[in-house]
Amino acid sequence: MMDFISQCRAALGAAHVLQAPADMAPFLTDQRGRFTGQALAVLRPGSAEEVAALVRACAEYRVTLVPQGGNTGLVLGSVPDLSGRQVLLSLARLNRIREVDAVNRTMTVDAGCILQHVQQAAAAEGCLFPLSLAAEGSCTIGGNLSTNAGGTAVLRYGNMRELCLGLEVVTPQGEIWNGLRGLRKDNTGYDLRDLFIGAEGTLGVITGAVLKLYPQPKASLTALAALRSPAAALQLLVLMQDHCGASLTGFELMSQYCLQLVAQQFPQLRQPFAAPHAQYVLLELSNSEPEQHAVGLLERAIGAALERGVIDDAVVASSVAQSAALWQLREHIPLAQARAGKNIKHDISLPVSRIADFITATGPRLDAAFPGCQLVCFGHVGDGNLHYNVAPPDGIAHEDFLLNQDQVNRLVYDSVAAFGGSISAEHGIGALKRDELARYKSPVELNMMRAIKSALDPLGIMNPGKIL
Amino acid sequence: MMDFISQCRAALGAAHVLQAPADMAPFLTDQRGRFTGQALAVLRPGSAEEVAALVRACAEYRVTLVPQGGNTGLVLGSVPDLSGRQVLLSLARLNRIREVDAVNRTMTVDAGCILQHVQQAAAAEGCLFPLSLAAEGSCTIGGNLSTNAGGTAVLRYGNMRELCLGLEVVTPQGEIWNGLRGLRKDNTGYDLRDLFIGAEGTLGVITGAVLKLYPQPKASLTALAALRSPAAALQLLVLMQDHCGASLTGFELMSQYCLQLVAQQFPQLRQPFAAPHAQYVLLELSNSEPEQHAVGLLERAIGAALERGVIDDAVVASSVAQSAALWQLREHIPLAQARAGKNIKHDISLPVSRIADFITATGPRLDAAFPGCQLVCFGHVGDGNLHYNVAPPDGIAHEDFLLNQDQVNRLVYDSVAAFGGSISAEHGIGALKRDELARYKSPVELNMMRAIKSALDPLGIMNPGKIL
Repeated sequence: MMDFISQCRAALGAAHVLQAPADMAPFLTDQRGRFTGQALAVLRPGSAEEVAALVRACAEYRVTLVPQGGNTGLVLGSVPDLSGRQVLLSLARLNRIREVDAVNRTMTVDAGCILQHVQQAAAAEGCLFPLSLAAEGSCTIGGNLSTNAGGTAVLRYGNMRELCLGLEVVTPQGEIWNGLRGLRKDNTGYDLRDLFIGAEGTLGVITGAVLKLYPQPKASLTALAALRSPAAALQLLVLMQDHCGASLTGFELMSQYCLQLVAQQFPQLRQPFAAPHAQYVLLELSNSEPEQHAVGLLERAIGAALERGVIDDAVVASSVAQSAALWQLREHIPLAQARAGKNIKHDISLPVSRIADFITATGPRLDAAFPGCQLVCFGHVGDGNLHYNVAPPDGIAHEDFLLNQDQVNRLVYDSVAAFGGSISAEHGIGALKRDELARYKSPVELNMMRAIKSALDPLGIMNPGKIL
Repeated sequence: MMDFISQCRAALGAAHVLQAPADMAPFLTDQRGRFTGQALAVLRPGSAEEVAALVRACAEYRVTLVPQGGNTGLVLGSVPDLSGRQVLLSLARLNRIREVDAVNRTMTVDAGCILQHVQQAAAAEGCLFPLSLAAEGSCTIGGNLSTNAGGTAVLRYGNMRELCLGLEVVTPQGEIWNGLRGLRKDNTGYDLRDLFIGAEGTLGVITGAVLKLYPQPKASLTALAALRSPAAALQLLVLMQDHCGASLTGFELMSQYCLQLVAQQFPQLRQPFAAPHAQYVLLELSNSEPEQHAVGLLERAIGAALERGVIDDAVVASSVAQSAALWQLREHIPLAQARAGKNIKHDISLPVSRIADFITATGPRLDAAFPGCQLVCFGHVGDGNLHYNVAPPDGIAHEDFLLNQDQVNRLVYDSVAAFGGSISAEHGIGALKRDELARYKSPVELNMMRAIKSALDPLGIMNPGKIL
């Protein structure tokens, strides 16, 4: 392996080939601290050409590689295994905004750019890059692409796949594919772009991308509605979309237990309703028109919802500060969970129309199997995405409850499958859900995936053990 | 081959295996009448299971197959070759609307459903299926998917790829992949859906799809703006998007020569401006709000454009009839071209920001090579898509001018490539542009496409000679 390392040093300069345990440590443990892998080296290339040189070296010496962006992934997709024979390829030094084209509404960036920097560069040109998620201060565009990231604006703008027009990829043969096209329409052969997006680094290394930008919204307005049930939330969604169309940019469901958890852990946050309700929906409207227009639109829609008995109560933010306070409730749910102790997490999606039935059916099954367990159920309901987390019954230690993880997962995922849903809505598969994937995907689909993997990466050097 | 035909008859019933020349004829010539192929038989299955049985027979006997929907394709993608050894697989009998889910805003359909029937079924549930194009009365969803169709609503709703959530596909092995998922978020492995979409039947046969629906817009408003140049049209696009956001649903450029052609061939159509202008943009606004809101929005935006000198004049339709009259001008351009005689057509796309430079640079080059040639240049400029057609100089017979087709294509496509564009924006590659694809795609990209083709269809039975 010394020859291989020498070749890496020659390609990058010795300073960017890390081998000391202390230097490598930050790259080897996943964000939630669940797993620590080992690596032969951490490689920090500074350009697509350097990435290509490293991949060619990996192919020559049959060294497998694990690409990593901001190391904020949630499914152990960007940390190496325990063998110590893999290299960790950090894309963090590829961090240039290459070009902003305000007329084409596109931005060309290196894969290692941090999402927040991309958002800021778009805003500086009067544009919006809509992807927004909790890790935006440290996650990278390459990771967002490789996991087809979702977040809070999918309802209006789509997932990362819908926000990307073109890619630059280093293939498993160490060639650079320049697919950095800024085209809204291009029907010239197979859609390689969308194949690499969401492939979690198993088919090639994304080194650059052309991202889609949108006009910056001029006004944004937030409201919180109180409802009796998830079924009412679905009625509200249809009503809001009929009234507001594309101006409805956020629709987040939270159960009473979620807000109770936030109130317990963060008593300083103001709870908007005097009495508790079973469910809440956080609504956001934003568009290119003056704020008074959004106010009128939202008031009419909320009025119709109250009149038809779809919602029981609502507060509409009348200032930016009030909007922020309502969003804080939503954003503090994961933080409150973390303070309360570990729980068993699921990032699932369902057809929107089946969410209420899923919640109604699955809760009692969990309660029958694990009496008294608590559901922390919230999420991007407008996209059919639930964060469906199971916490221990009162009086049971979190560590003890986690021993039931496999049985809880089986029960939840079987229910997801029965309702036509997905076991990973926005986090990906990685190493964490690989066995679950094999269980829930059809052999026909798995075989096609394996055929594509073998065709593009016949040596199997690209992030093996992830997804497949 | 008799054994193969017997097997097809056993699978479908003899009535759906056509072999008489008169029965087969309608399936063997492309819509524009440019090419007539030959076939061993025309097979008309009635279900995905029957398609699968036929594909297994094809694999067993090494018979290659050509899937066909409404036979409205423009690139010879769905007609057989001259060998007489291929079978034509018509999906027309798979024409059931399987399910409409108004809460999930999805519709599950057979691939052979005619686009207009799908639009109507959506409307009956108060929803919109936004794909709209000239052939909508006879083209099928399977063909729309296989060519990733575009049309007039891409600016707001995207191409067919963005309008599809899930697929059912018969693989080259004759297995049925049930990927009919109605999920907005699903990150569980490689994106096979988008690989089959746009693959023009070369990787498998699409038999069903889950389509995305939208709320039906409540108001729609049309205007025609007169401008000095394509550069002004781009300024107008940015201004309109900043003012109207997602409410801007149409933005179509037409040159003076296009409207002149329409006036010559259809003198009964009213021309909206007394004096000619160099360029025109047809604008459409639509959203979920009352019509008076759209009127105010459009008037403010048009006012700003006039004030800044971006446009020279504008008419805003004040009735549905006036809107229709403005759209008729746009829709009569292809008809007027057809009446005037054949020309050399290009369906190209460019980064939106480079359209004006492309037009400015390419016209003089064509004029230098073919003095006096006329450009019929119009299209979906909001998507970067131009229909850039070259007509003969006055006094030159259309048939004679068509002899220059290869040289004209070379000049236009070289210019498209130089400006970062695509030689096929929305029509696909088929057999017609296969050699052009090989010329303009990088070897890296072509090799990946070939590797995928071989991996999924190792026997090469799926629509060979198309795309690759």
